[in-house]
Amino acid sequence: MSRPSAPPLHTSAALPLAVDLYELTMLQAYLQNGLGGEATFSLFFRQLPPGRSYAIACGQQEVAELLPTLRFDASALAALAGVPGLSPMLLEWLADFRFSGTLRSVREGTPVFPQEPILEISGPLAEVQLLETLVMNQVHTQTVLATKAARLRQAAGPVPLIDFSMRRAHGIEASVRGVRAFYIGGLDATSNVLGGLTYGMPLSGTMAHSFIQAHDSELSAFENFWATSPAPTFLVDTYETSQGVARVIELSRRLGRLPAAVRIDSGDLGMQARAVRQQLDEAGMETVRIVVSGNLDEQAIARLRAAQTPVDGFGVGTALGVSRDAPALDLVYKMVEYNGRPRAKRSPGKIQLPGAKQFWRRRDVHGRVLGDVLGLTDDFAEGEPQLREQVVAGDLLTDTLYPLEQAREHCAWELAGLPADRMALEANAPALEVRLTPALRALAERH
Amino acid sequence: MSRPSAPPLHTSAALPLAVDLYELTMLQAYLQNGLGGEATFSLFFRQLPPGRSYAIACGQQEVAELLPTLRFDASALAALAGVPGLSPMLLEWLADFRFSGTLRSVREGTPVFPQEPILEISGPLAEVQLLETLVMNQVHTQTVLATKAARLRQAAGPVPLIDFSMRRAHGIEASVRGVRAFYIGGLDATSNVLGGLTYGMPLSGTMAHSFIQAHDSELSAFENFWATSPAPTFLVDTYETSQGVARVIELSRRLGRLPAAVRIDSGDLGMQARAVRQQLDEAGMETVRIVVSGNLDEQAIARLRAAQTPVDGFGVGTALGVSRDAPALDLVYKMVEYNGRPRAKRSPGKIQLPGAKQFWRRRDVHGRVLGDVLGLTDDFAEGEPQLREQVVAGDLLTDTLYPLEQAREHCAWELAGLPADRMALEANAPALEVRLTPALRALAERH
Repeated sequence: MSRPSAPPLHTSAALPLAVDLYELTMLQAYLQNGLGGEATFSLFFRQLPPGRSYAIACGQQEVAELLPTLRFDASALAALAGVPGLSPMLLEWLADFRFSGTLRSVREGTPVFPQEPILEISGPLAEVQLLETLVMNQVHTQTVLATKAARLRQAAGPVPLIDFSMRRAHGIEASVRGVRAFYIGGLDATSNVLGGLTYGMPLSGTMAHSFIQAHDSELSAFENFWATSPAPTFLVDTYETSQGVARVIELSRRLGRLPAAVRIDSGDLGMQARAVRQQLDEAGMETVRIVVSGNLDEQAIARLRAAQTPVDGFGVGTALGVSRDAPALDLVYKMVEYNGRPRAKRSPGKIQLPGAKQFWRRRDVHGRVLGDVLGLTDDFAEGEPQLREQVVAGDLLTDTLYPLEQAREHCAWELAGLPADRMALEANAPALEVRLTPALRALAERH
Repeated sequence: MSRPSAPPLHTSAALPLAVDLYELTMLQAYLQNGLGGEATFSLFFRQLPPGRSYAIACGQQEVAELLPTLRFDASALAALAGVPGLSPMLLEWLADFRFSGTLRSVREGTPVFPQEPILEISGPLAEVQLLETLVMNQVHTQTVLATKAARLRQAAGPVPLIDFSMRRAHGIEASVRGVRAFYIGGLDATSNVLGGLTYGMPLSGTMAHSFIQAHDSELSAFENFWATSPAPTFLVDTYETSQGVARVIELSRRLGRLPAAVRIDSGDLGMQARAVRQQLDEAGMETVRIVVSGNLDEQAIARLRAAQTPVDGFGVGTALGVSRDAPALDLVYKMVEYNGRPRAKRSPGKIQLPGAKQFWRRRDVHGRVLGDVLGLTDDFAEGEPQLREQVVAGDLLTDTLYPLEQAREHCAWELAGLPADRMALEANAPALEVRLTPALRALAERH
């Protein structure tokens, strides 16, 4: 191996190098052979992972903001000059690169189903090809994580949900973009300082077991913490939970103040929450909340709520941060049109629908979703069209940008409109029906 | 939500903000209450995920390089000043922060087992606590990914393995640090340009189906690609594999040159590889290699190899990039000593062994691993001690840094020495026996 040579990871110069090598080798063949036609690529998935009945489209707004700014600077070009086989013609083209095409995307927070484009990018073939890996990576990450967040929200109902997952996310970037996706998907707060500050999400934090252990007694630990935090959440399970709660009660009486909450992080959360609730209530501390954490996922939360466990907040970590049961989505970025003609791959076992697309969501008078219709961009179908232009001729349409709160509201509203039988949290809930327009069906059959 | 305010993610100023809020609230309580004693925290996991019989420790060398450089600059401090409840005393302390403690770690590429520390950090309590989330996040990511890579290496035997996973990784950072972990775990090349350039790993790239689809015929696509790539790998399954191969053969004869390889990315890979091998051999193209890709994991690779499928390279994507079957490890960072006294959490259902630790690996005369012994730092046990100092008094010991090649060789050598019955790729292979020293056992029982 040669010595490393690339702009440091934590610089914006590194970002355009987020490509697979084949994007560059294909690009140089396009340039040399004069393949300068207009292409459309579509980003969609062929099937949902087991146990998922929808995916929440997320990340495409950040892609829209990124595309017009993407440049290969001198350090990036110098790094590429060291890759064997890349031509000077390619490097010159990259030096001049700025995206000149069109991005059409669904609104963030929209539930999407197999074959429905999350976004489509049109423009000169070389440009659209170059973006493949970066666009896929960014939308995949946030879509996977927003989907998991939305499922947790479903399970938790109105109970606050806090993201504790930073330590188990795949890198700092994943944890920070995760915060964005979690907020859109329906979480309420995060422990992730960088993520919370980056996206303006409320921060939440309590104490670790180490805080208790650093003190000679649990009581002195609680006392010291209260001296610096006016409305603390006390972690009560470091030694023995009922004793921990007794110390909180003792201290509360002595100081004449109430803490905000107690947190339980291990053992049988349901049994302990009930016992702690009783202990607090008997001490007249009915307003002190109970937060539970520790290996929670949507199934565990649903069970705790079904048993009417007295819980006022769920802290979720690993299951959320890596979307543990479904860490990946079968997302693909496929050419669907070139030089005005629909294209599709035809190899066995993988169906692809040709043509640049639109899809429509049909609702009844109460706003409940009846189903989707997938068609071509010049089709007409009943319902609300889902893809809209967000970058045109390389320029961001800033009036298409929504604040995160609106994406979050949109997500909640869309999910509330899905048929209840499509919303099961268990494995293999049927996905929403997606019908094809006659024009798309005819094109797919001809192809 | 307030408007975002933080140093941009892709800047080094953002890195020290990779903390959970509770690190900061605990820290401010430590500072205000004068808890300035020395602490040791241990990073380990309590159990392996289902289907794993070892984890490959990875990422700790990057942590060692990072710790001495970590600073809160003006932009980071300004962002923190906006967090409610953080005291001026804390912000002043952070402004002066530089790590002054000790990091002890195992060599990267070492297989580790439950309860064995991957690293331990000692120093003033506030400093060691502050690092928790960042250290966990970084070591967790690379350890999860290196472990998956090592399993793929086991399955592939001597056949080259190429990382195609960038598009499905959780963010660009995960994909880039992944390249490092994959190389240590035993992969041979990557399609990830930024990752390959960052760590000096060989780049590999072929072509996408879109390249073929952009041309009027598969033949002209191959012809155009060959004009710019002297030793191409042709993707032959865009339309019909045997026809794709026939076109490669036709073109090869016409040009009087041989391509490097053909790639098959869909359908029954075993059946197709056999048919393609026969087709190429009958054309006298025995040296043209066959690369297969498409939903491969270690089980699929093991099956293809058990059936003696003629494959000369495996491209692996999603299964690798998110470690799909086990995307997280139950990694924890626990206080084990404070002010010279061993500490442990005692709540039900979670065992923790107190005390700063060392562990030793015992081998027979042939270098085969007999088992590990876990003890206290001042214990003596048979075998080779695994944790060694890498940062002392805040300074990096640069002679403890290994080039990636050596970590990779170390990983291969260590895995070759593990007992064969511990190396099954199937679920629930028994982990290596880890014995406790009498001193640690006595301490754990007293505690």
